Amino acid sequence: MQRIFLDHASTTPVAPGVLTAMLPYLGERFGNPSGPHGRGAAAREAVERARADVAALGGAAAEEIVFTGSATEANNLALKGLVQAAGGRSLHLAAASTEHISVLHPLRTLEKRGCRVSRLPVDGRGSIDPDDVARVIAPDTILISVAHASGEIGTLQPLAEICRVARDRGVPVHCDATLTAGVIPWPSGDEGPDLVTVTPHLFYGPQGVGALRVRRGLRLAPLVEGGGQEGGLRAGTEPLAAIVGFGAAARLAVEERAGRALRSSARAARLRLLLQERLAGAVFTGHPAHRIPGHLSLCVRGTEAEALLTAL
Amino acid sequence: MQRIFLDHASTTPVAPGVLTAMLPYLGERFGNPSGPHGRGAAAREAVERARADVAALGGAAAEEIVFTGSATEANNLALKGLVQAAGGRSLHLAAASTEHISVLHPLRTLEKRGCRVSRLPVDGRGSIDPDDVARVIAPDTILISVAHASGEIGTLQPLAEICRVARDRGVPVHCDATLTAGVIPWPSGDEGPDLVTVTPHLFYGPQGVGALRVRRGLRLAPLVEGGGQEGGLRAGTEPLAAIVGFGAAARLAVEERAGRALRSSARAARLRLLLQERLAGAVFTGHPAHRIPGHLSLCVRGTEAEALLTAL
Repeated sequence: MQRIFLDHASTTPVAPGVLTAMLPYLGERFGNPSGPHGRGAAAREAVERARADVAALGGAAAEEIVFTGSATEANNLALKGLVQAAGGRSLHLAAASTEHISVLHPLRTLEKRGCRVSRLPVDGRGSIDPDDVARVIAPDTILISVAHASGEIGTLQPLAEICRVARDRGVPVHCDATLTAGVIPWPSGDEGPDLVTVTPHLFYGPQGVGALRVRRGLRLAPLVEGGGQEGGLRAGTEPLAAIVGFGAAARLAVEERAGRALRSSARAARLRLLLQERLAGAVFTGHPAHRIPGHLSLCVRGTEAEALLTAL
Repeated sequence: MQRIFLDHASTTPVAPGVLTAMLPYLGERFGNPSGPHGRGAAAREAVERARADVAALGGAAAEEIVFTGSATEANNLALKGLVQAAGGRSLHLAAASTEHISVLHPLRTLEKRGCRVSRLPVDGRGSIDPDDVARVIAPDTILISVAHASGEIGTLQPLAEICRVARDRGVPVHCDATLTAGVIPWPSGDEGPDLVTVTPHLFYGPQGVGALRVRRGLRLAPLVEGGGQEGGLRAGTEPLAAIVGFGAAARLAVEERAGRALRSSARAARLRLLLQERLAGAVFTGHPAHRIPGHLSLCVRGTEAEALLTAL
């Protein structure tokens, strides 16, 4: 029996071309991008090339990309960094109740520190209603945080509409695009979110690196302080090889994601048909049309989740 | 002319054996250590093996090691995490005035949030006097933070004595061992510091990973929240290959550091003699005996620092 790893929403292998790009920076091209000598300058150049490639994932400017250690750290930086820069307490934020825990837990901490947080409801297909976003915005609202897609059930949110509603009211939007950036771009330019979280380990790049796109003019306070790396927003020696791998995976994604989306959607549709035929009790969840390409989610009536997972 | 890279206090290349250990985890052994399936379990095992190897750097228990994204992040976690867990404000901390900026900047932020910070003085050789530590400790002191060695001038601090003074008064000690862990162990067991920062990219391991040793029973709050990774102290998908490389570099360091210390001390002594003979105006700084093996620091009288650095 051949095993097929289906959990690419958890992590993906590093593509051979990405590994080839990384290897020199684990070997003869090692260096500290903040070092003052020639080796440092070459490392710095490699980091800046990768920054431009990551920015191109969503039509951002290179200088808007802040490298972090993970998507989780980028989500924490977006939420806590914005609140901290704005004075720290008594502010209002809103997020979908279905966000990833790396958004929900920082929000809980911000609530303990005196912030007010609204949970946006989702309908039976997991979609957020942009009108609900309009309704919760108050004079002290400093952020709307909405993932591009739900990781559990794969539903894509109406992100451009949500951004328009927020922009009309002068409120920035944070989008966790972790699950989507490798297959579809986030809405870019003025239409798009102001803060965007992304990590390459979900699109054939390395683990141990993430990025937050921070729209020009938006002020954040750093979580991790020290050296002046990443424009003062994330101190610490840059993970050179991982950043180079991030850049290579981003280039690959921009070139291939249209094809990837088509192929993986077709595969998911085939698997869905197969399961519908052979698995009594299969109930497919999430939005039937607006979903992450290649993402499949279902409940199996009458079966305990843990038991099914172990059996799989 | 052969160039020799002398700035190993900034970053080191990855040792061939370390890279060999890492590569499978960038390839066929990829996985998410938090994943529920077999691939996840294998990744988890690799992380736990690395954790034990890192703990052995300083005689700690494996479960006392928290992996972070860098030494800078570990320093931030030690300082801000301890203060946050203790209630957040009106507490007292003390650190040497010569600490790395990844200690000094978080301390400045904690001061802004209402903490009181004492700067421990150093003498002409860069040494901290343990009596000064005793003098600054007050009833509200929650931490003494002292690097094992000064990165600029290489002086090793009397860490065991500082720990004894602090322990006698019930105050935990944080030690930034970034510059020393690859060449000399930090004092372990009851004699040693309670919180220890370390990163492998200064001893032939990868960038993009660090660790904080947290003595059993000491409570910290996380900076990066989300999933339950690292005992809830550092959320986010673990950088599997980098952690495996950290473990391999730690094993190598424990085996080889005594030899490394001897060899690099001999080389530094030779370079020092050469410079003394040929460089008029050379003044060697730091402690002549208690210093990082292989570390050399000097001033050159009558020369501007930037000009000299560029010429080198």
